[in-house]
Amino acid sequence: MSIFTQMKKQRPLILVTNDDGITAPGIIALVSVMKTLGDVIVVAPDKPQSGMGHAITINSTLRLHKTKTHGVKEEYSCSGTPVDCVKFAVNKILKRKPDLCVSGINHGSNMSINVIYSGTMSAAVEGAIEGIPSIGFSLNNYSIDADFSAAKKIVKTIAEKVLKHGMPKDVCLNVNIPKLKFNEIAGIRICRQARANWVEELDERHDPSGKPYYWLTGKFVNFEINKKDTDVWAVENNFVSVVPTQFDMTAHKSIKEIEKSWAK
Amino acid sequence: MSIFTQMKKQRPLILVTNDDGITAPGIIALVSVMKTLGDVIVVAPDKPQSGMGHAITINSTLRLHKTKTHGVKEEYSCSGTPVDCVKFAVNKILKRKPDLCVSGINHGSNMSINVIYSGTMSAAVEGAIEGIPSIGFSLNNYSIDADFSAAKKIVKTIAEKVLKHGMPKDVCLNVNIPKLKFNEIAGIRICRQARANWVEELDERHDPSGKPYYWLTGKFVNFEINKKDTDVWAVENNFVSVVPTQFDMTAHKSIKEIEKSWAK
Repeated sequence: MSIFTQMKKQRPLILVTNDDGITAPGIIALVSVMKTLGDVIVVAPDKPQSGMGHAITINSTLRLHKTKTHGVKEEYSCSGTPVDCVKFAVNKILKRKPDLCVSGINHGSNMSINVIYSGTMSAAVEGAIEGIPSIGFSLNNYSIDADFSAAKKIVKTIAEKVLKHGMPKDVCLNVNIPKLKFNEIAGIRICRQARANWVEELDERHDPSGKPYYWLTGKFVNFEINKKDTDVWAVENNFVSVVPTQFDMTAHKSIKEIEKSWAK
Repeated sequence: MSIFTQMKKQRPLILVTNDDGITAPGIIALVSVMKTLGDVIVVAPDKPQSGMGHAITINSTLRLHKTKTHGVKEEYSCSGTPVDCVKFAVNKILKRKPDLCVSGINHGSNMSINVIYSGTMSAAVEGAIEGIPSIGFSLNNYSIDADFSAAKKIVKTIAEKVLKHGMPKDVCLNVNIPKLKFNEIAGIRICRQARANWVEELDERHDPSGKPYYWLTGKFVNFEINKKDTDVWAVENNFVSVVPTQFDMTAHKSIKEIEKSWAK
């Protein structure tokens, strides 16, 4: 299809990043799969960067360090955010545009509104901005001891599909994998982001001198229970959710509506 | 219109935040306008937070301090990001949902793809997630000595329109104001986010011990020159751009396309 980016014949060049940091089990699992599909370069944060959204580092300096964690040809830890890592890879490290950019596997899900808070997904979105077919992978299991064996099979299937078919222009994928054994997974569903919210609490505590400080904590509330075309429904019903995700945040339908309303 | 949030009869309650920090001239200008429209509460970062995107603070603690910078009933500086500030206001400080949440006035524009990197706009998007009519204001002037007098008139006009007509569900506004005198401004255009990129450079320098460090810097490249329905065209042609902005990042058109392609 003409709208899909054309695939190259040579061995794919694959950029791997994440937001849990370069030593997290999730990125180790992701690299191990990508090694079977192409030449891998890793540029990932030197420390956990969860919840960084699409943050970039403009008010301070950045450091880049060569590492030997993953046993690939080139790998670097970066002092910045996941988005900084993609910018470093594209603008400083890589000789050519990679054929695939993958981020994750995140320790915890990034369904629904979490796409906007997620460092994992922001790296994938940045890849799409750069014109690279990009995928963010998240496993619905927050444990450091999470079992990634089923996730690895899913990651391989989806990465192969993207390498074969390419990606629509200006789109990346948000993939969420349920916490299940491989044979318990019901299938893969292409779906949309559910409308859900965090109902936050600021957990107030007091420091040794009696002054208050706060932890941000919250409860996830899905306003679209039983909507079968959403990512939350898919994962809750044992499917892998795949949400095509884009960076045009324009509410196109509202342009005419607001014009009309304001003309009154 | 039924899709617009219903407006209250009482004096509006207005939440003000920004990403340049609570003492920036831009937020001082914004508060001075909002005081003429309603009861104002300020919750803003205690230091500059540009480029923070939709970051939230989940791996460290947050502090909140009462301040007396703006001469309003309640004002607080927060150690977190712009999104954290909105979460604090809604979940900890405000007794009721505000009628309006405004962010800015940013020192510098947030047109096009910058909506995704911008702390100013992320605060407005967070307001929309919380169901509050929300607006991010940016002036296309990066100077600390920027003249906000024309911007203040624009801000008042647009805030009054939103207070009167409400906002479509799940939508906020990204307003960019050209660096012009008021009588040079050609008007207000409701438009869409232009397709543009930062072509980045990593400016490499060396520390006193000879090790490299980097500054992220870049050139803004607009791929939609002369597209009159975009925000970049509007501001370059002396208009105020207003982009209705939403947080559903699903590429809806691509769902069927990918389903079809992957079925092959």
